[in-house]
Amino acid sequence: MPVLTPQHEDFPRWYQDVLAKAKLAENGPARGTMVIRPNGYAIWERMQAEIDGRIKAAGAQNAYFPLLIPMNFFEREAEHVEGFSPELAVVTHGGGKELTEPLAIRPTSEAVIGEYMAKWIDSYRDLPLLLNQWSNVVRWELRPRIFLRTTEFLWQEGHTAHATGADARQYARRILHGVYQEFMRNVLAMPVIVGRKTAKERFAGAENTMTCEGIMRDGKALQMATSHELGQRFSRAFNISYSSADGASELCWTTSWGASTRMLGGLIMCHGDDFGLVLPPALAPVQVVVVVVKDTDGEVARTAAALVEDLKTRGVRVRLDDNVAQAFGWRATDWDLQGVPIRVEVGPRDLAENATLLYRRDTRDKDKVSLDNVVDEVQQLTGRIQMDMFETAMQRRDAIISDCATIDEARDVAQTGVARLPWEVIGTAGEEDLATSGLTVRCLQLSDGSLPETEHDAGALAYVARAY
Amino acid sequence: MPVLTPQHEDFPRWYQDVLAKAKLAENGPARGTMVIRPNGYAIWERMQAEIDGRIKAAGAQNAYFPLLIPMNFFEREAEHVEGFSPELAVVTHGGGKELTEPLAIRPTSEAVIGEYMAKWIDSYRDLPLLLNQWSNVVRWELRPRIFLRTTEFLWQEGHTAHATGADARQYARRILHGVYQEFMRNVLAMPVIVGRKTAKERFAGAENTMTCEGIMRDGKALQMATSHELGQRFSRAFNISYSSADGASELCWTTSWGASTRMLGGLIMCHGDDFGLVLPPALAPVQVVVVVVKDTDGEVARTAAALVEDLKTRGVRVRLDDNVAQAFGWRATDWDLQGVPIRVEVGPRDLAENATLLYRRDTRDKDKVSLDNVVDEVQQLTGRIQMDMFETAMQRRDAIISDCATIDEARDVAQTGVARLPWEVIGTAGEEDLATSGLTVRCLQLSDGSLPETEHDAGALAYVARAY
Repeated sequence: MPVLTPQHEDFPRWYQDVLAKAKLAENGPARGTMVIRPNGYAIWERMQAEIDGRIKAAGAQNAYFPLLIPMNFFEREAEHVEGFSPELAVVTHGGGKELTEPLAIRPTSEAVIGEYMAKWIDSYRDLPLLLNQWSNVVRWELRPRIFLRTTEFLWQEGHTAHATGADARQYARRILHGVYQEFMRNVLAMPVIVGRKTAKERFAGAENTMTCEGIMRDGKALQMATSHELGQRFSRAFNISYSSADGASELCWTTSWGASTRMLGGLIMCHGDDFGLVLPPALAPVQVVVVVVKDTDGEVARTAAALVEDLKTRGVRVRLDDNVAQAFGWRATDWDLQGVPIRVEVGPRDLAENATLLYRRDTRDKDKVSLDNVVDEVQQLTGRIQMDMFETAMQRRDAIISDCATIDEARDVAQTGVARLPWEVIGTAGEEDLATSGLTVRCLQLSDGSLPETEHDAGALAYVARAY
Repeated sequence: MPVLTPQHEDFPRWYQDVLAKAKLAENGPARGTMVIRPNGYAIWERMQAEIDGRIKAAGAQNAYFPLLIPMNFFEREAEHVEGFSPELAVVTHGGGKELTEPLAIRPTSEAVIGEYMAKWIDSYRDLPLLLNQWSNVVRWELRPRIFLRTTEFLWQEGHTAHATGADARQYARRILHGVYQEFMRNVLAMPVIVGRKTAKERFAGAENTMTCEGIMRDGKALQMATSHELGQRFSRAFNISYSSADGASELCWTTSWGASTRMLGGLIMCHGDDFGLVLPPALAPVQVVVVVVKDTDGEVARTAAALVEDLKTRGVRVRLDDNVAQAFGWRATDWDLQGVPIRVEVGPRDLAENATLLYRRDTRDKDKVSLDNVVDEVQQLTGRIQMDMFETAMQRRDAIISDCATIDEARDVAQTGVARLPWEVIGTAGEEDLATSGLTVRCLQLSDGSLPETEHDAGALAYVARAY
């Protein structure tokens, strides 16, 4: 009997099963909130560490801004307030009294950070100002789904101010490619589609939103991270200005960019299979589990423990499973569920042959390997799985994408996959039309994979899909 | 002209000056909230990393529970709701509608975590359940002060469930001593007083609260971290039970424990001086700054850069200051303000003698050191400063503590320092009396420094002080 509902039978049910059985997360008591359990949180911590290092390498510094924002802050940028008002959670009482001005729980922090950028920036010497924050945000969700859409989620949000539009533009792209795309490719093993959002799909208050779109195994798309050029809108609203080298007062150009716990949902649905989670080794909190299949005189356990120490010395994140009181099959099923990339199985019979069984979670292949070589083999396998997982995901993604010539064709294709067609064939009217079938233009890309300069660039291709 | 108000002149003003001039933090837009600037946040990140490692070594796993908690959750434990009700921030509107049940922003998470512990714990095999969460919490503050008392603050909160009271008791102490006290001693270089809180000062809902009390340079105490035995109160309220080995249903015993951004305030006020922050090397985000005093032909800058690389290789957190366009005096003042433990100054004249000046922030002593030895000297100095800072703080603390025989004597002493006297001399009536003079019993300790088993232990000594 399978532990999980098979993907082909009911993909959303499979997803819920994985969350529950692998003990990743569950619903919180208030509608739309979630509890991230230790197994899920350990993956998030690894994501945080990897992204944080890349953000710091890009020169941004972490800071922390308040959760509670006066309502009037939102109202200063017209599109921003219009976009976020319907999603706000509002605090009206504090310390047993009704507040004179209600406070919003941050849905994002452009407004409050804009206020402080204005205070901190004086001259061109203070630019660029590159800030990042790890925090929780709240956006009221009508159709919540764990990790994908939750009323509260965890994320990082970067906010930068620049002297010129060109500098802001370049930095927003550096984050998009050098942080997000690179992290998703090399750590998450996910081949995301990187493109420009249409005006309809833009962040509320942005002049340009760029996105990394992941393609899930059911053919749906998931926005994994976005980077926004905010132009001078927030600078104007919050008076973020600087004096230039020749003493003139100039408005700054700002950007913002974020990636959230939603990536956990993307990771699960991009790589997971009917046996559970499949984690890429570069991300996995536990890369290798050394399993004592059975033991008679403690010799197997000793060998396994020594192996664990060897692997630790090589910097491998490894765990020992010597819980022989529990049946091996049960434990193997559970390590499969957890998505641990590599299993080294040791039993009395293997030991008699000086051998171990090396199991890789992604392909579920098993190989007999000499005990003398197993540490080297594990290290090589780690790199191989990482590459193979990316390749497999890439092939799956490419097989799902179909080039189309008309909107009708795209509508058909996008029922189960991703349609690619010239943006000029769709246009804003076609985009509205597709929306009535539950389809969205995920992003625009030029034929060489690069980003269009504007929505009107000749030759821009649109990716159309259902989305989470 | 001094950059900061001198401590002896106006200590609270000095504290505000340090926060502003060292760019550590400032007030947020909503009353009582704070913005933690990059300089302050970098210190918090180092605190987090050090504490997180210790918590994991103690076997607890990180998880994340929702910010928003239904009001009825609080009401299940009578003392808990009584203690926290006056401090709650309440969300009454979400997604543009009034909520049918208002949600509290967590002031602490015993209630919501209790609910999930009850779901997750089945048998004795699931115990102990050791959880920790890094998050923000909100408690309405009437007299806010940055880092010390803010409406929103950042912290970790540990929550554990055990099969027996003895096990819970032991774990709460393991965290108190093995995580908090050890971290404060060896990383923060702070000699905290570890003791038991009186019933009056206990956490709302705890049966025993244990504390690490820091002593500030103005003689006031600051509660730096607490660890609570919650007995079976929350287990009863949330039905956190397990089936024992012989099949009986038993209530768990729970603990909780936390340390927050308040520690930043303690760090500043324990070690800081009239020149600014003084950071212990084990904590400092930047341990060493190599300063190019002046340069003529780029030779000094090259030497300084090479030194930085050498220090990096040795694992030292080092920064280069080659900003010779700015006057050396100004930069030195700023590095003093930031509290960077060690400064290596290199100038053309030093270089001609193959020498550098080695400056230590804690004592402000300068030594001429040969360029050939400076890397070794820096490494030794790092350890020496760490020890010296602890010793100095310990001497200052001990000089501030006076043994007293009567409440009246204690009241006098505690105007400027810390009074120590037998708890039986004070008693609960005396404690109320001291409160009218703005004094609190910070904690109880036995004469050998250990923790009393109960409030009524013979020989328990009380520490009485003003407190932040």
